[in-house]
Amino acid sequence: MANSFSSSLAIGPDPIPREQLAAVSHSASTGTVLETIPVVQPSDLKPGEALVKLIYSGVCGSSYHQASDHWAEGKGRVPRPLIAGDEGVGTLVAINDPTSRFKIGDTVGIKFVAATCNQCTLCLAGLEMVCPQAKYTGRSVNGTFQQYSLAWTSQLTPIPPNMNLAQAAPILCAGVTVWRALKDSTASAGDWVAVPGAGGGLGSLAVQYAKYLGMRVIAVDSKAKDTFCTDELGADAFVDYAAVDYVQQIKKIADGVGVQATILCSNEPTSYVNATDYLRPTGSAMIVGLPPTGSHVPVDCRNAVLGMHTVRGCFVGTRGDVIDALDVVARGKVVPKVTVKPFSAIQETYDCMAAGTLCGRVVVDMWE
Amino acid sequence: MANSFSSSLAIGPDPIPREQLAAVSHSASTGTVLETIPVVQPSDLKPGEALVKLIYSGVCGSSYHQASDHWAEGKGRVPRPLIAGDEGVGTLVAINDPTSRFKIGDTVGIKFVAATCNQCTLCLAGLEMVCPQAKYTGRSVNGTFQQYSLAWTSQLTPIPPNMNLAQAAPILCAGVTVWRALKDSTASAGDWVAVPGAGGGLGSLAVQYAKYLGMRVIAVDSKAKDTFCTDELGADAFVDYAAVDYVQQIKKIADGVGVQATILCSNEPTSYVNATDYLRPTGSAMIVGLPPTGSHVPVDCRNAVLGMHTVRGCFVGTRGDVIDALDVVARGKVVPKVTVKPFSAIQETYDCMAAGTLCGRVVVDMWE
Amino acid sequence: MANSFSSSLAIGPDPIPREQLAAVSHSASTGTVLETIPVVQPSDLKPGEALVKLIYSGVCGSSYHQASDHWAEGKGRVPRPLIAGDEGVGTLVAINDPTSRFKIGDTVGIKFVAATCNQCTLCLAGLEMVCPQAKYTGRSVNGTFQQYSLAWTSQLTPIPPNMNLAQAAPILCAGVTVWRALKDSTASAGDWVAVPGAGGGLGSLAVQYAKYLGMRVIAVDSKAKDTFCTDELGADAFVDYAAVDYVQQIKKIADGVGVQATILCSNEPTSYVNATDYLRPTGSAMIVGLPPTGSHVPVDCRNAVLGMHTVRGCFVGTRGDVIDALDVVARGKVVPKVTVKPFSAIQETYDCMAAGTLCGRVVVDMWE
Amino acid sequence: MANSFSSSLAIGPDPIPREQLAAVSHSASTGTVLETIPVVQPSDLKPGEALVKLIYSGVCGSSYHQASDHWAEGKGRVPRPLIAGDEGVGTLVAINDPTSRFKIGDTVGIKFVAATCNQCTLCLAGLEMVCPQAKYTGRSVNGTFQQYSLAWTSQLTPIPPNMNLAQAAPILCAGVTVWRALKDSTASAGDWVAVPGAGGGLGSLAVQYAKYLGMRVIAVDSKAKDTFCTDELGADAFVDYAAVDYVQQIKKIADGVGVQATILCSNEPTSYVNATDYLRPTGSAMIVGLPPTGSHVPVDCRNAVLGMHTVRGCFVGTRGDVIDALDVVARGKVVPKVTVKPFSAIQETYDCMAAGTLCGRVVVDMWE
Repeated sequence: MANSFSSSLAIGPDPIPREQLAAVSHSASTGTVLETIPVVQPSDLKPGEALVKLIYSGVCGSSYHQASDHWAEGKGRVPRPLIAGDEGVGTLVAINDPTSRFKIGDTVGIKFVAATCNQCTLCLAGLEMVCPQAKYTGRSVNGTFQQYSLAWTSQLTPIPPNMNLAQAAPILCAGVTVWRALKDSTASAGDWVAVPGAGGGLGSLAVQYAKYLGMRVIAVDSKAKDTFCTDELGADAFVDYAAVDYVQQIKKIADGVGVQATILCSNEPTSYVNATDYLRPTGSAMIVGLPPTGSHVPVDCRNAVLGMHTVRGCFVGTRGDVIDALDVVARGKVVPKVTVKPFSAIQETYDCMAAGTLCGRVVVDMWE
Repeated sequence: MANSFSSSLAIGPDPIPREQLAAVSHSASTGTVLETIPVVQPSDLKPGEALVKLIYSGVCGSSYHQASDHWAEGKGRVPRPLIAGDEGVGTLVAINDPTSRFKIGDTVGIKFVAATCNQCTLCLAGLEMVCPQAKYTGRSVNGTFQQYSLAWTSQLTPIPPNMNLAQAAPILCAGVTVWRALKDSTASAGDWVAVPGAGGGLGSLAVQYAKYLGMRVIAVDSKAKDTFCTDELGADAFVDYAAVDYVQQIKKIADGVGVQATILCSNEPTSYVNATDYLRPTGSAMIVGLPPTGSHVPVDCRNAVLGMHTVRGCFVGTRGDVIDALDVVARGKVVPKVTVKPFSAIQETYDCMAAGTLCGRVVVDMWE
Repeated sequence: MANSFSSSLAIGPDPIPREQLAAVSHSASTGTVLETIPVVQPSDLKPGEALVKLIYSGVCGSSYHQASDHWAEGKGRVPRPLIAGDEGVGTLVAINDPTSRFKIGDTVGIKFVAATCNQCTLCLAGLEMVCPQAKYTGRSVNGTFQQYSLAWTSQLTPIPPNMNLAQAAPILCAGVTVWRALKDSTASAGDWVAVPGAGGGLGSLAVQYAKYLGMRVIAVDSKAKDTFCTDELGADAFVDYAAVDYVQQIKKIADGVGVQATILCSNEPTSYVNATDYLRPTGSAMIVGLPPTGSHVPVDCRNAVLGMHTVRGCFVGTRGDVIDALDVVARGKVVPKVTVKPFSAIQETYDCMAAGTLCGRVVVDMWE
Repeated sequence: MANSFSSSLAIGPDPIPREQLAAVSHSASTGTVLETIPVVQPSDLKPGEALVKLIYSGVCGSSYHQASDHWAEGKGRVPRPLIAGDEGVGTLVAINDPTSRFKIGDTVGIKFVAATCNQCTLCLAGLEMVCPQAKYTGRSVNGTFQQYSLAWTSQLTPIPPNMNLAQAAPILCAGVTVWRALKDSTASAGDWVAVPGAGGGLGSLAVQYAKYLGMRVIAVDSKAKDTFCTDELGADAFVDYAAVDYVQQIKKIADGVGVQATILCSNEPTSYVNATDYLRPTGSAMIVGLPPTGSHVPVDCRNAVLGMHTVRGCFVGTRGDVIDALDVVARGKVVPKVTVKPFSAIQETYDCMAAGTLCGRVVVDMWE
């Protein structure tokens, strides 16, 4: 049986360097620092692979958690040295896939789901994010905290023309995840939803997409983010997470009976413990954030039954979801709250995450 | 403002006695015993109320739990003396509702949801079981463990003609609950589902309805119920709950990746602790049983997200659901495994539940 | 068997007159004129009935069609003398239903579905509008074009406090119908929808609700309504229905492939003939308007299959739907375009409908 | 910019002949006859293409309609010479796709959707069958009525192990289409459905899948197929399509109110004209068959609205749907009624279709 696999390669006009800068974390204690590492060369691309010259990369909570060893056990084992980053926007500079829609020069997004088989039952059912053969950016394969990134054409994302690329970046992980979580929740236009962690990267987008979908939003976060949540993001109400009676406050605002859904975007394990306590009957708690290993939503059987509650884990979204979520931003319906910083600012962004002081998303410029 | 409310009463031809037998539980330690208590008289019926002469009543796990003080705290406080029972079939003997479809002589069912307002947002959305004004049979109002029961026309259930009435009884609570749980789960025809507690009253019906819906069923229970589950109920496979590796056994049978849904029918808190461990990606754990107060499904945030799992509380069903579930039985597609015992056998049935030795449902004959 | 049904009546403090004004149509040729007719007296109320003193009533296209004998055959036979009107807002002045949530003095809405059995399979499935025993306002029972109207408590609508009552009126038929049609369509936030008849009573609300739901709207109507549709209603684009290539114009605007849904609100049979011609694959044509008897959407089998198209008839909505639709208006998210006229202006409104010159909805003040 | 695309080819051990037999139709009048034509050679395969040595091919109504010029206009223009056939099962003998799950020797199915882009909005939304770049087997590309067929790896179907391959063939077009139509209809377990054309290839599978899904089925066909439909397929009732009152007969059987869905599988345009006349409220008419060009379901606006009817075009299914539909057969839950005939029998099968005398599906053995 003959079995010769050769390549079908296209390469852009600009030279690809042999070395690049990458933000590398060797251990939780060493922090994340810029280092020089090799660039994957076009000649190394296997069928279905591409090379992307990154422009911006969002700094996601999952990058922070990994770098900090918060997911240190079991499936959560962190690859070291870690090159994290799962929200990258850049330019396609090489591709080994003659059947792809993508071509040299395209502006593309790299998201958390890096590659899937496109052939298993889950892929065929539109559940590609849990494909057993999936590769995950910044996790099972190197992430977008490097200037040139290997990518797989099957999961590359087209970026709409004329889009603000710094705003596009966080949609590729944070945005698509909260968009899908809102759609999968039991809430729809007119319903009250709560967003614990509303002021952060995930949460700020959750508030904005919820408003776009006609929902009424109760932002829940630390007191310092109050006006950011209401005045800048458009939340209808704000509840201070530190208030002793914050569960009661949420219920009171939400017609006295609680919200139809809570979109759990916080890093804090405590946000998850009482997530079902302020749901109205038939309400849903959508787990979006990935708090440290061991965090739980403890579903009390009786309360869940009597309240007909749903608790669901929300894992990014499909290729179609991310296109939809980007389209909302491209049409100006949601304007992500993004702060652009130099590539070297990743560790300081992690420090702000640890302190809980970030408002919105930090996006790093890979070339500054 | 004139405001005179008088009644509009219809009474059947047979005399209504002043006294009757009821199974009463004064405390968890005294057990449930037959006593003579007064009968609600037709002249006491307020608008929208009816009187039903019961024929059969199913002995439900929730009756057992209440009688045993397993739900002894908070919302779970048990009314004493307790007249439990929430699956009754009988004959309408008096009615104070001229607009009702029901008339004297009709065979009717009394279910757990005894009355709702039919006017609130939840009622109008088909979620009447969580109506804030709902009355619950055998809980907030006296149950069906009495020969004559007060009932509300708005939630009475018509029983199909020519139906085996002993088989109809358990559908009014156990049957409708598992029917709705299966429909609300993420499983459909062809999918694997697990049923912990498969041999019991709830579980046996879950297995049978799942088979009717084309699903593949893994019964999970104690070893002694193996052949009952497979040979009599039709389960495709059986897993002994006591096996150390029972989670792995379930996953192995279910294509090596786990079930699409688990219908949690067990009384044992331990069944709930690992309910999400044998789900396949996008699988759902449906909480149906009401294990003792404090029982939890601990939803690990990371695992739930990475597996896109859903955990949901299932609370009986609507009036429409119970009609559908009865219709399946009336057409012979599901034949409930029912053992008819005399009215006096309620306490001994509780004892079997405590020992975990029941197969299928016990239904008591109110007049034997 | 005793069987005595007596009444349970509450009556408000103000005297109920014996006579009132009603807008009556004896035949299509005579037009609709105000006449004096008797008032139903509180003592005539049967169980479950109420008397409403109307304040405003919307002038609906279905009233016009009936008065004009456009639905002159089969099921469409018009009762004569006709008292039409199916969107009324008023005050409850008498009620014979002690179990109702409504009480004397409540502001209530009367909608097209006047009464249902609340007990049949369709009612229990949330499809009460097609209950075989349904009574329809202004059709099988006298409508709201009279100062006092008999109503049934089971289908009365609570009006939110502090609401503009003239704006509430058209939501009770036109508003709820387009709201439900949009929800039942295959379109969601971000999708393109077309609204033929966009400038009329139904269509104007369809445009506004669609915008509230985040959709992109192509208004289709006669040229004179162009700026009304875009500037006042907020449509994203306008297409002149008289243009020879209007189908192509719609497709061009909608990404070149057509709309995800068309909400057919026109009175013109011609609008229905090509309703599927400008749908994109998987698009849906929602029949909302009730054009003259014999109007058809001709579904070409091959085109429907190859385009996976859906054509659906939309029949008002449930009690829950109308509450939701009113809530959107009560919160100021949709501001219905209403012109208040005196009660006597019904015939002139019909004349404008015939000429196709109305923009938005006419609501008549019953006491002016 | 370098841009060199070379191939990555795998070829099986058996020699690929230069010539083969194919069933060719040069015009509607000449009929379909076996001819010798060239075989696509492995060296001709472009990236993403494969060569399949066919074993069986089902004779589908769409092949007949095309050969007979029934779809002679517009989009329906028939390619000539026509090599039809869209339900083929065979063995993979060459493949140019190193990333595919398929390998030499695999048993695979070729279905109507031959190839899609897997990258457009519709493909990403699980609506690949209407991908603008889709290739269709036996229509835009040569079909399976040849011994060796070019195929595209992105839409090849894996055939379950140990499956009866003659039974697998008709699932690839007829089976998946009716499976999906049943799932997309408004009917579910327990509901009544009608199947016009029940005795034919499409219809017989519709009856069987409907029974598997727990539905109650009224088979509608010509009198001669009565016992075939009830005794062999398992339909609950049979209605003779030639009966003057057949619409009334269907309604009478279906609880007097009509069916919840009709799965329109007939070749006869007349079956489509009254498809909504025997629907119950909220019922759906699913257009599955592809009757001659110009056939319509005329949706009367008033009746559709008052009945809340849905009419939908059903266009095969996704890759996931076909895997599901095959799995039902592989597990023995549906046993397709298949008659195996020699490859040369295609024209005589068309003649039987024209006469309406076929029961079940004819599958041709490509090597007999």
